[in-house]
Amino acid sequence: MAAISSVPSPVSNPEAAQWRPWMRRALALAALGTGRTSPNPLVGAVVLDHAGTLVGEGYHARAGTPHAEVHALAQAGERARGGTLVVTLEPCCHHGRTPPCSEAVIAAGIARVVVAMVDPNPQVAGGGIAQLQAAGIAVLHGVCDVEAQELNRAFVHRLTTGRPLGILKWAMSLDGRTALPNGASQWISGPPARAWVHQLRSQCDAVIVGGGTLRADDPLLTSRGQRTPEPLRVVLSRSLQLPDRAQLWDTTPAATLVAHPPDAPAAAKAQLQELCSNYPGLEALELPHCSPAALLEALAQRGCNQVLWECGPGLAAAALREGCVQQVAAVIAPKLLGGTPARTPLGELGLQSMDQVQSWQVRRLQHLGPDLLWNLSALR
Amino acid sequence: MAAISSVPSPVSNPEAAQWRPWMRRALALAALGTGRTSPNPLVGAVVLDHAGTLVGEGYHARAGTPHAEVHALAQAGERARGGTLVVTLEPCCHHGRTPPCSEAVIAAGIARVVVAMVDPNPQVAGGGIAQLQAAGIAVLHGVCDVEAQELNRAFVHRLTTGRPLGILKWAMSLDGRTALPNGASQWISGPPARAWVHQLRSQCDAVIVGGGTLRADDPLLTSRGQRTPEPLRVVLSRSLQLPDRAQLWDTTPAATLVAHPPDAPAAAKAQLQELCSNYPGLEALELPHCSPAALLEALAQRGCNQVLWECGPGLAAAALREGCVQQVAAVIAPKLLGGTPARTPLGELGLQSMDQVQSWQVRRLQHLGPDLLWNLSALR
Repeated sequence: MAAISSVPSPVSNPEAAQWRPWMRRALALAALGTGRTSPNPLVGAVVLDHAGTLVGEGYHARAGTPHAEVHALAQAGERARGGTLVVTLEPCCHHGRTPPCSEAVIAAGIARVVVAMVDPNPQVAGGGIAQLQAAGIAVLHGVCDVEAQELNRAFVHRLTTGRPLGILKWAMSLDGRTALPNGASQWISGPPARAWVHQLRSQCDAVIVGGGTLRADDPLLTSRGQRTPEPLRVVLSRSLQLPDRAQLWDTTPAATLVAHPPDAPAAAKAQLQELCSNYPGLEALELPHCSPAALLEALAQRGCNQVLWECGPGLAAAALREGCVQQVAAVIAPKLLGGTPARTPLGELGLQSMDQVQSWQVRRLQHLGPDLLWNLSALR
Repeated sequence: MAAISSVPSPVSNPEAAQWRPWMRRALALAALGTGRTSPNPLVGAVVLDHAGTLVGEGYHARAGTPHAEVHALAQAGERARGGTLVVTLEPCCHHGRTPPCSEAVIAAGIARVVVAMVDPNPQVAGGGIAQLQAAGIAVLHGVCDVEAQELNRAFVHRLTTGRPLGILKWAMSLDGRTALPNGASQWISGPPARAWVHQLRSQCDAVIVGGGTLRADDPLLTSRGQRTPEPLRVVLSRSLQLPDRAQLWDTTPAATLVAHPPDAPAAAKAQLQELCSNYPGLEALELPHCSPAALLEALAQRGCNQVLWECGPGLAAAALREGCVQQVAAVIAPKLLGGTPARTPLGELGLQSMDQVQSWQVRRLQHLGPDLLWNLSALR
């Protein structure tokens, strides 16, 4: 991202203050695309005429459809000439599935562009701003930068790491159990928490379980229609001991991907191939090796910005150890399950002393009916 | 408590409203005795003269010292005549370590007594109110009854069950671990949570651990001077495998009691006797059998209204199974420890299906620095 060094330094506070209310409106517009724009970022834009009156607004609604700036400029029409574009992300300067926005901005006769954050995409990375400036447009950037980075943290994470941002979710009793000793777990949390899980899935591009969860719970893993299309349902299985029947095999509600290592048993691979031919939409993916990181790299290449780990303790711990979890969302029910053999949220993390234990940053504490939701972020 | 049936029905709402502000003041006074009145309840009182002006107030500060009514009447002096006594608990009518308050109220010439709750003590149980009424005093009761019951729930619990109210406390990571797999646990929670534990101990008459916690942690178990005297430190040990040296053996900061069953190994009992002769203030107690309930019954007989379980998973689960825990206070740190063999808060509770799992009632959710404190009550 060397080009970013050519970007003018962020707007000073007094200058930024007058644009913040408009940028917040643009950010609110951007958020309307949540869960539907991957692999693209969330972007919102407003256009003000030369007198400062709102004349256009828009947001990016889905990959392959016009960008936010294009919507806002189209709505403004001739009134954009000599006006200001307020946009949450630097306008793109490359030909993707749609033409570069920088050209559209110049063509519309915009006099000033206010940007929240520079696009971390190496194909942009300050190039859009440079192109606007070269055309004589005044560019301010860094207005509400923190909010914009937060809104697009999954997109930024994928571009900077090559992996989607990972959220690990579980529901447990106050004594840290995700099931009774005999495996019963329905339901630890109440209806509001379960509805929240569907909403969380609608914000993710893929939902991942391990073979154990598939066999034990036969989950459906959809957002119950809150996201169209539903997130990709992914099973990561080392052994490929797959059940003949499973809700995931019916891909009417959502696509399913079964990922496995090259050394899975041949008979199991053959069974998977048979499942795939019986169930249209069911797909097999051979990873270079069986690891959460390898899976996430494959999912990034498929355009996933954000994924949800809904797996058992072993896979969850592996995902944490491999840096595949940036956010933890734990639902805590006011119940006590007890039992040393009862399932817990996490397997072995390999920690030897309390000095090695990191504190996570609190994102949000929320009540979900009788349950608590504690949402933490990894410290960067 | 048959006598309660002779108590007039609680005051009606319109009548109660005018007394509530004074009763709240009396309740606030009562709370000043927290942690120091056992086996007695917390009681506060205010005296108003015949014109409704505050002329006296007081609270019960410590067992064996005058009751709240006596302090308030003494402060009011002659101005109590024809006035009103507002008191959080029915005045006593029996000779204990101090003379009956009902007689003092009558002697002071009080015209009206407003009471929050009837005394559940079978020696009183409406008898105090009856005595006042027989002397021609108007008595209203039930004003702020719920708050008064809550303030004295430990006292009420002991009188109605023969056991002190039990609070079970633990600190855990967000994945429900109270130690790393290698046993390291200092510190999971931060300094504010550890200071809160000292405060919690100051509200309890005894703090209980098992032999395992004693051997593993060598704890001090005091309120760090916040309560005088410090709560009784109790070790419940089946095996009596006691260390020769332990912070608990030095009873300079606080008394220590070692409770054991009759069938503890003879050699271990002899070692305990030797420890007791070496460490003045260290006391041994043989229980009829090794159970949390038997221990609590013995502690109730020693005047404990409220005890704190600070024990490991096995004893905590046993205390829960035997109904010895009415409140759970769990500190949750924003950390992940992991590891299937790592210690968890509770051992086996014997639950076979999710239908058997009870929800607890949320008392309070609190931030303690970076940590959360979730405080739950058993549903009655």
